[in-house]
Amino acid sequence: MSTTVIPTEKTPSNGVSTANKTTMKGLVYNGPSKIEWKKVPKPKIGKPTDALLKIIKTTICGTDLGILHGKTPSVKPGTTLGHEGIGIVESVGTSVSKFKKGDHVIISCITSDGTCEYCKKQMYGHCEDGGWILGNLINGTQAEHVRIPHADNSLYAVPEGVDEEAAVMLSDILPTGHEMGVINGCVKPGDTIAIIGAGPIGMSALLTAQFYSPAKIYMVDLDANRLQLAKKLGATHTINSGEEDAIKKIMSETKDGVDVAIEAVGAPATFDICQGIVRPGGHVANIGVHGHSVDLQIQDLWIRNITLTMGLVNTNTTPMLMKTVESGKIKPEELITHRFKLDEILEAYEVFGNAAKEKALKIILSN
Amino acid sequence: MSTTVIPTEKTPSNGVSTANKTTMKGLVYNGPSKIEWKKVPKPKIGKPTDALLKIIKTTICGTDLGILHGKTPSVKPGTTLGHEGIGIVESVGTSVSKFKKGDHVIISCITSDGTCEYCKKQMYGHCEDGGWILGNLINGTQAEHVRIPHADNSLYAVPEGVDEEAAVMLSDILPTGHEMGVINGCVKPGDTIAIIGAGPIGMSALLTAQFYSPAKIYMVDLDANRLQLAKKLGATHTINSGEEDAIKKIMSETKDGVDVAIEAVGAPATFDICQGIVRPGGHVANIGVHGHSVDLQIQDLWIRNITLTMGLVNTNTTPMLMKTVESGKIKPEELITHRFKLDEILEAYEVFGNAAKEKALKIILSN
Repeated sequence: MSTTVIPTEKTPSNGVSTANKTTMKGLVYNGPSKIEWKKVPKPKIGKPTDALLKIIKTTICGTDLGILHGKTPSVKPGTTLGHEGIGIVESVGTSVSKFKKGDHVIISCITSDGTCEYCKKQMYGHCEDGGWILGNLINGTQAEHVRIPHADNSLYAVPEGVDEEAAVMLSDILPTGHEMGVINGCVKPGDTIAIIGAGPIGMSALLTAQFYSPAKIYMVDLDANRLQLAKKLGATHTINSGEEDAIKKIMSETKDGVDVAIEAVGAPATFDICQGIVRPGGHVANIGVHGHSVDLQIQDLWIRNITLTMGLVNTNTTPMLMKTVESGKIKPEELITHRFKLDEILEAYEVFGNAAKEKALKIILSN
Repeated sequence: MSTTVIPTEKTPSNGVSTANKTTMKGLVYNGPSKIEWKKVPKPKIGKPTDALLKIIKTTICGTDLGILHGKTPSVKPGTTLGHEGIGIVESVGTSVSKFKKGDHVIISCITSDGTCEYCKKQMYGHCEDGGWILGNLINGTQAEHVRIPHADNSLYAVPEGVDEEAAVMLSDILPTGHEMGVINGCVKPGDTIAIIGAGPIGMSALLTAQFYSPAKIYMVDLDANRLQLAKKLGATHTINSGEEDAIKKIMSETKDGVDVAIEAVGAPATFDICQGIVRPGGHVANIGVHGHSVDLQIQDLWIRNITLTMGLVNTNTTPMLMKTVESGKIKPEELITHRFKLDEILEAYEVFGNAAKEKALKIILSN
């Protein structure tokens, strides 16, 4: 066999190199409670399957706050955070066939090679050469530029006419709420469902649950402001669990509990609400990221034919969700409460970290 | 409206009343650790949908031992135990259309009216006028005679040529192992599965899992004798968890764990094995009846896309299982280790209560 050097970066069609800039600004994690908006090396195409993007818009996820609080040991100091956003393709590796310079793309929070056993089961979140790596194992999207591995399978063209801010919600929160909450919970027409936690993920479950026409949607949270928005977005019942016993109220208002309880917080107390309200044959769909074990009341639940699901988003429904946003069936931009310039990101973290006080839900950062 | 007296018992076609006998012998629960084989009133047809049976064969379930150990407060002193068996129809209520005097029938452990919301979802175990009531809320099958409510939906004709002892296994253990273990666990061709607990229920899961052609079946138990039988019945791998660390062994022998872990014991230690060996995207199908909560390691599992199921048998696959027994596809009589006369039932409880020492798996009691 002869050895040939494979060029990893296609020459841009307009003949202008995009590689002039060698540095950029990025939000760097420096260990628990330490983040910095600083100059870092601009990423380069490393493999033929990579794409290099200029970020247009990005956002901050609850998971990023978790990292900041030291809950995610896989994130090493020096990593640029962020796993959501949209961008413009600056250059692509030689194997990338679906995207070219100038394309506007949605960045999936999940990177996937499309070829491993897990990808072939549409479990892209467990891709053997991907999964949730952006802003975790590799540098992420809270930066001026980002390198996206396996670009053909990990980016989506922003559909014509779709609001750019709405498109950012397709990176993570919409597929997460839909797949881990609504699909895993098997929400069906006529069901009574409860969503525990009215944050961005709970709200995404609320928006996407309505595709399947449940009869009643309870939304449970401690924040009156979020509950008010939930009502506007389609919740039929809201319960402020700081003021009322959610389990007692739901059990008194339903025949024998809810068909589907969606956990969108990631704490023992909210998990317990789900255990306490699910009816025989019902589903508990856990979306929340938990830091501790929970006490599963299997001595009561074993006989009740409960299904409990949990998991990292697959993003296998992203193309379907894009169509629902494109058609105006759902308007995820209604979840956006604050807007900043990308270089105001430290201020944005402050606001998002005090979400209740600031009445913040989803924050858009524009580059 | 005129008031008419509806006769609740059809006159037997041969003109001979079956109601001559007014007493019979039954195994009566008298509170924790107290059972007695004693004279009790013979049951009568109470409702038009009832059938009265003479027991041919019955058996003892692990659940009966649980009752004896005081773990089932729903069972009140004075109740005749037992929820499995086959019998001959002695008489039927006026609404019963599928069965007549002289029919040999399999008694489902689950009584169901076939009309309520749960029955219409095939969740017969949660029937609003039934469920697991035999030997629990009403007198059961460990007696010379038994009254079966909702007979048309709760009895099955013993198929031509089916071994009577095999038929007893269709009352509970086969549908329980199949539905709560194999079906809930979504066992598929090529899967690697593990069954934790090689008792009658675990063995039933082992027999019925093979319908779906898994590639590897691990059987885990503390009892070498049961593991030997499991090998004979189709287990490809056995682990004596008293001698080896089952989690370490399975994780070292598989790529990333098992597709399906079936819990067939009902204890924290065996539940923990399941949590420790399930691969991303896998299923933990709990069959065991638990007396205590378990510590769910959701801080590790949340990201692994695990589905955990649990429940009381529906018996909706009993007709299908009858065909597999009738065709000889499975031979559940291989689970039978001991045989007694019905009036030797106290001795049978002794043997079953010391199953490991006595090498007992399933015991047949003949009337």
